[in-house]
Amino acid sequence: MKQHSPSYSVTLRLRYSNAVGRLAEIASAIARADGLLGTIDVIQSDRKMMVRDVTFQARDAEHARRIGDAVAALAGVEVVEQADRTFAMHVGGKIETCPRVPLADQDDLSMAYTPGVARVCREIAARPEASFAYTIRANTVAVVSDGSAVLGLGNIGPEAAMPVMEGKAVLFKVFGGVNAFPICLATQDPDEIVRTVKLLAPTFGGINLEDISSPRCVEIEQRLIEELEIPVFHDDQHGTAVVVLAALTNALKVVGKTMENIRITISGAGAAGAAITRLLQQVGVRHVVVCDRSGTIYRGRDGNMNVVKQWLAENTNPEQVRGTLGDAMKGADVFIGVSSADVLTEDDVRSMAPDAVVFALANPDPEIDPALAAKYARVVATGRSDYPNQINNVLCFPGLFRGVFEVRARRITDRMKIAAALAIAEVVSSDELTADHIIPSVFDRRVGEAVARAVAAAAE
Amino acid sequence: MKQHSPSYSVTLRLRYSNAVGRLAEIASAIARADGLLGTIDVIQSDRKMMVRDVTFQARDAEHARRIGDAVAALAGVEVVEQADRTFAMHVGGKIETCPRVPLADQDDLSMAYTPGVARVCREIAARPEASFAYTIRANTVAVVSDGSAVLGLGNIGPEAAMPVMEGKAVLFKVFGGVNAFPICLATQDPDEIVRTVKLLAPTFGGINLEDISSPRCVEIEQRLIEELEIPVFHDDQHGTAVVVLAALTNALKVVGKTMENIRITISGAGAAGAAITRLLQQVGVRHVVVCDRSGTIYRGRDGNMNVVKQWLAENTNPEQVRGTLGDAMKGADVFIGVSSADVLTEDDVRSMAPDAVVFALANPDPEIDPALAAKYARVVATGRSDYPNQINNVLCFPGLFRGVFEVRARRITDRMKIAAALAIAEVVSSDELTADHIIPSVFDRRVGEAVARAVAAAAE
Repeated sequence: MKQHSPSYSVTLRLRYSNAVGRLAEIASAIARADGLLGTIDVIQSDRKMMVRDVTFQARDAEHARRIGDAVAALAGVEVVEQADRTFAMHVGGKIETCPRVPLADQDDLSMAYTPGVARVCREIAARPEASFAYTIRANTVAVVSDGSAVLGLGNIGPEAAMPVMEGKAVLFKVFGGVNAFPICLATQDPDEIVRTVKLLAPTFGGINLEDISSPRCVEIEQRLIEELEIPVFHDDQHGTAVVVLAALTNALKVVGKTMENIRITISGAGAAGAAITRLLQQVGVRHVVVCDRSGTIYRGRDGNMNVVKQWLAENTNPEQVRGTLGDAMKGADVFIGVSSADVLTEDDVRSMAPDAVVFALANPDPEIDPALAAKYARVVATGRSDYPNQINNVLCFPGLFRGVFEVRARRITDRMKIAAALAIAEVVSSDELTADHIIPSVFDRRVGEAVARAVAAAAE
Repeated sequence: MKQHSPSYSVTLRLRYSNAVGRLAEIASAIARADGLLGTIDVIQSDRKMMVRDVTFQARDAEHARRIGDAVAALAGVEVVEQADRTFAMHVGGKIETCPRVPLADQDDLSMAYTPGVARVCREIAARPEASFAYTIRANTVAVVSDGSAVLGLGNIGPEAAMPVMEGKAVLFKVFGGVNAFPICLATQDPDEIVRTVKLLAPTFGGINLEDISSPRCVEIEQRLIEELEIPVFHDDQHGTAVVVLAALTNALKVVGKTMENIRITISGAGAAGAAITRLLQQVGVRHVVVCDRSGTIYRGRDGNMNVVKQWLAENTNPEQVRGTLGDAMKGADVFIGVSSADVLTEDDVRSMAPDAVVFALANPDPEIDPALAAKYARVVATGRSDYPNQINNVLCFPGLFRGVFEVRARRITDRMKIAAALAIAEVVSSDELTADHIIPSVFDRRVGEAVARAVAAAAE
């Protein structure tokens, strides 16, 4: 059964005659309908009537409706309003553009706008790199998507991708102090995406690609890196690789193994799987086997291949293992899942080497129930906030771009990515480090600054 | 000689030994160098030393330098820092992106981002128009330019256009509560601009075109209006037309004339001149003659024509006047200049009909010195803030888009533009209306709301 979730939380505005025991009745009705009670506020109250906002969590939308109905069925209780808190939070969008300068009088206006602004325009026309000092390019990233691979939802298109990109923009600001603006494009043609982003480049200091399906995203990112003078970063690839490296660095400290000597099995041969592989190889990992739905990837495999898998075939699987994911799990020290729900079995985890590490990162449902994995693995991590060890890209991208902007780096190099990963890992001190705490909380405010510092230093 | 201007204001940070009369010496040095003293702040002070920030206005950059040098030459005064206030105001850009939702804990995160955001994405995928409720499309406009005709600076390119578009974005927010984001494109090809804006459309609720050279801007705007489902507005054309109509409405009240009976001469046959002509004809104006550098525009004119002028030739100049601007000024009731500095002579204004109205809107220097025009014309207006009657587009576009967003209008019709103009005019009550006060101040907070209300009503 699904868990109660804040993403299915509802606020009921209730009006009822003010008498002893009424609130208890309401709370009981919610509990009987299996709702998880949250905050209760008084909105209005007099001797006769009471108006309260009562918030509860449900397991899904249908369940939330049933709970609301149960409350509405109570004699003398009127449901004045019923607000789905997730939708309510999205009304009008999640970001706004705000002035950074005052505009209180004509003096302000004649500096921020005509005629004074013309002086700044002329300076940039004469010296284009001045745009990185005097415009939002100093600290603004475009969050670009074509809506082709959004979360676990697939190809839902640019309009439907906007809430995710807006959320990303909020994360950039809150956790890195970086301004970010969503750009959702009404095309899924790689040439057109590349061309459009190039035409947009004068507006931005950096480009964060997001939720573009694989392998198109790899080509798009490579072409943009080559053709643009501003940094380009595909978070689903490299952000994921950075946080995985951070978590693995600490997990290996817990189990007492080294990058050079571990055997890693990766489930998921998309862009993320390949980026993780490449970054791990940069820090000394020698033994990686990558699997997709067709099993292990090896040189000369025929079916279900593409440019990304071709690269993997040539650069991983040193023993040329042919077989299923289950075959590849035998004796592995580390499992990294960037694939889909429930592809890993309890037996697979049991067949791993002692002191195994399992990162089951599929979203929203991991490759294996983390409780099952924990029966055999020493360290278990997921992408979810409701289990220990949440491996979340938000630990990386805000601080990374902040560091990039601080030194006006033109490229994001592997050295900078590795520095970001080590900085994230080091936020967990040796005192704090346990099997259940290999990675800092996304709300740990030290992370963004530590990543920014490390990235800026690595860029110089 | 140029006037002192806040756009050439400088803040000097001065350190000097604290003694009676030192500040007076400094103020005298600035005055001797012809600087206009502004604010004076104490930064640090003890018995021996004083550190002050002293701000002054100069006539131009070279003049500002000379004043700084004069202060630095004073014995015992050290210039610690010298900040050009206009450039200082632009450091890091003039807008930022800000969260509209809290992100304080996991509950917030799971509603604003995964997993809760997926519910909103699915809703939009199923019902695309929901994107106008649950994303920034509800209230966000793109300020799009190719940098081909920026202010009076000409074709300075997209990077150099950014400070203007950022300024515009600030104005949208401050005066209309509308979010706006600059989009400066690295292309000046109309097909490519149209294509790019169409690809960007899923991100925005409306498009404000800006500073694109004529006649390309007319074609670009028309094609976008036809091909997009969101409102498209070229401010240089229609915003200008709206504020001119607003000002003219009130000017005619002052001089006691009517739209139907006046003779109007327009200098400037670009997109703005044509848009003004079209809107004025919608409210009853019958007699308009438009001039460019080659003189009056008439049917069958050969040289220096284009698609915009062709339309003007066919739809204006009922008497088919051929000649110079000076010829067209004889007996005119109204002059509207959207051209360039000093094209109008004192004699031209003298030759107008009694109770003449002169709108000399060229920026930054008007078609005629307004003091000269005022010798013969009853009402004189400019685009400048340092004369009475500033006709400024900021009176229109923030409230206009606010009204458009409030009712989710898909098009901006002439009816809505006229409603906006009348709303602006009506903010100046009959008590307040004089020859020197035909248009509200850009800082009059009533304007944005009045325009929004009128536009929303006209849209329904």
